[in-house]
Amino acid sequence: MEPENQVEVAGGDARHAEKMRKKQTAQAKIMASKTREQGLLIVHTGKGKGKTSAALGMVVRAIGHGMKVGVVQFVKGAMKTGEKAVFDAFPDNVEFKPMGEGFTWDTQDRTRDIAAARAGWDEVKRMIADPSYHMVLADELNIVLRYDYLPVDEVVAVLTARDMMKHVIVTGRNAPEALIEAADLVTEMTMVKHPFRSGVKAQAGIEF
Amino acid sequence: MEPENQVEVAGGDARHAEKMRKKQTAQAKIMASKTREQGLLIVHTGKGKGKTSAALGMVVRAIGHGMKVGVVQFVKGAMKTGEKAVFDAFPDNVEFKPMGEGFTWDTQDRTRDIAAARAGWDEVKRMIADPSYHMVLADELNIVLRYDYLPVDEVVAVLTARDMMKHVIVTGRNAPEALIEAADLVTEMTMVKHPFRSGVKAQAGIEF
Repeated sequence: MEPENQVEVAGGDARHAEKMRKKQTAQAKIMASKTREQGLLIVHTGKGKGKTSAALGMVVRAIGHGMKVGVVQFVKGAMKTGEKAVFDAFPDNVEFKPMGEGFTWDTQDRTRDIAAARAGWDEVKRMIADPSYHMVLADELNIVLRYDYLPVDEVVAVLTARDMMKHVIVTGRNAPEALIEAADLVTEMTMVKHPFRSGVKAQAGIEF
Repeated sequence: MEPENQVEVAGGDARHAEKMRKKQTAQAKIMASKTREQGLLIVHTGKGKGKTSAALGMVVRAIGHGMKVGVVQFVKGAMKTGEKAVFDAFPDNVEFKPMGEGFTWDTQDRTRDIAAARAGWDEVKRMIADPSYHMVLADELNIVLRYDYLPVDEVVAVLTARDMMKHVIVTGRNAPEALIEAADLVTEMTMVKHPFRSGVKAQAGIEF
């Protein structure tokens, strides 16, 4: 658990201990007020790296707790060989649906892409309706919404009407405002520095 | 691979296809210029969620590629039962060192904490020096630096002098400027919305 505030620390051990005592008391007070458990609607957006990686980290945590997770990939290749190999080690815990066959970054067939988006969305809806899934990851769904391949209203309506104990994670840049509005936890990944700028290519273990 | 630019899409299929063709050409040109492979120094910072989760996602990708990864946890409990169970399924690929025994968010013993930070840093140095590790994750190292428990200069010197094919990931809010300067890839996680604000507690599969 991270603290909600951080304090500057300087000086000797006694002053440090006193500051830490105050911080501990404040933190305990905050945590005592957090009593509810509920499924979260989580959005990872922004132009930075780590949207899919952070979702994947949550999938791993869920798997480790014995939960069942459904992963639907809306953009071809957004999830690759690396995570696939790890998912394969937990066949009872992860159902992985790569639906982006017809939709790649250099897509040129809108009708086919809409059909692929709809097929992916049908999978998400099925996993949301099925009580055996504890968590559903709709990877790069925001991209599909950005291109108007699925109606935002329908997506938000289904996500907000879900069993409230189910976690849903939606990733992709340009998350629509209505989705951000409906979400419980929204993180924006901002690119501060990117190695592509200096000619470094995508690499195993990092991008895929 | 995400495109470096996104274009607005509206209108019929022909216009869409034309825009996509242009985008494809531009993207191919950009990717063709990325030819170098090298180990990256990656920093996840910011006040938002997902810093450790995104690092964990990269660890999973690396494991899936058969790489060996060393994980050193500088803050007690930053990595928990969820990911530990998954790591345990890949004993040959992951070495996990939870070093934050003496350092928690409500720590009160500076001398003991500095010793724990130093022990963690010794593990990171060992993994960086050992060619069998492809990736090293120093989880929450930024926190330790923020509290001046380790000298930033020493840390940056070791990280930049490493074998240039080795990936190193450093997480934690308040990354020091010298580390950002030295890094190849820096992502800032920004909190847009957080469920703690509405009384929801930390939950399995999400926070741990």
